[in-house]
Amino acid sequence: MSQLSNFTYDEISIGQTAEYSKTLTEQDIVMFAASSGDTNPVHLDEAFAASTPFQGRIAHGMWTGGLISAAIALHLPGPGSIYLGQTLSFRKPVMLGDSITVTLTVTDKQDKRRTVVLQCIARNQHNKIVAQGEATVMAPEAKLNIPKPVLPSITIG
Amino acid sequence: MSQLSNFTYDEISIGQTAEYSKTLTEQDIVMFAASSGDTNPVHLDEAFAASTPFQGRIAHGMWTGGLISAAIALHLPGPGSIYLGQTLSFRKPVMLGDSITVTLTVTDKQDKRRTVVLQCIARNQHNKIVAQGEATVMAPEAKLNIPKPVLPSITIG
Repeated sequence: MSQLSNFTYDEISIGQTAEYSKTLTEQDIVMFAASSGDTNPVHLDEAFAASTPFQGRIAHGMWTGGLISAAIALHLPGPGSIYLGQTLSFRKPVMLGDSITVTLTVTDKQDKRRTVVLQCIARNQHNKIVAQGEATVMAPEAKLNIPKPVLPSITIG
Repeated sequence: MSQLSNFTYDEISIGQTAEYSKTLTEQDIVMFAASSGDTNPVHLDEAFAASTPFQGRIAHGMWTGGLISAAIALHLPGPGSIYLGQTLSFRKPVMLGDSITVTLTVTDKQDKRRTVVLQCIARNQHNKIVAQGEATVMAPEAKLNIPKPVLPSITIG
């Protein structure tokens, strides 16, 4: 996908869905820790993580929140959306190598502020829910079809 | 800070507070985008961002969520915490160079699962609230005093 397009408020229907998937890598954890400053050893230190109930390194819960943000920004409603709020319930740990799929489903539309409510469910490759919640987003007024930004190269270590 | 220590459930009182601050850099935005895959141009493309109501590049809302996660993991309750849930209301954009301070305040304790409820408020350098919400965290049972993980070097571009 080299272009990003969106759904305007008027184009969005209750029941509409979108998906976004990502596999958790070592690099993803390190970059999330560096970006936020959250260097909790349960994400970074194998020996410490092995001593916790998770028995190994896990993703930051908010990394899964970031995948929900990506699903909204890239797919539904897409670029031009304004993120108003999010609830998150963290249900299971996300381990290195897990493939997480976020499914968004439109559950409500509020005309007054062009607001859509999205049920957000993140599942792992075993179809188990790792996190779920609800997003509130102001949907775009204008149709957009724009180039997807390309990130600079990132070298770790 | 080269060591991380925590507050066990028994050591935590209602009304207890903690703070965590971070200034948003270009590198933080790029790493958050790479980690999550959220390459929304409002975060990465100056020309596109200038055309939005924000009139410039902004942080991912979930980056501020990551700062809340850092405040919990590093300070209150600290390492050994288990993040159960978070609500977030995004109130104002966070621009490049903004210094964000997260303040956590314990508002409730639930003995049954060693759960603490934290009010979370993120303010910018002008003391304006950029995001707020509530975290639910299982507090540690055991006292910890452990080395703070050191991240590998990261080179961008």
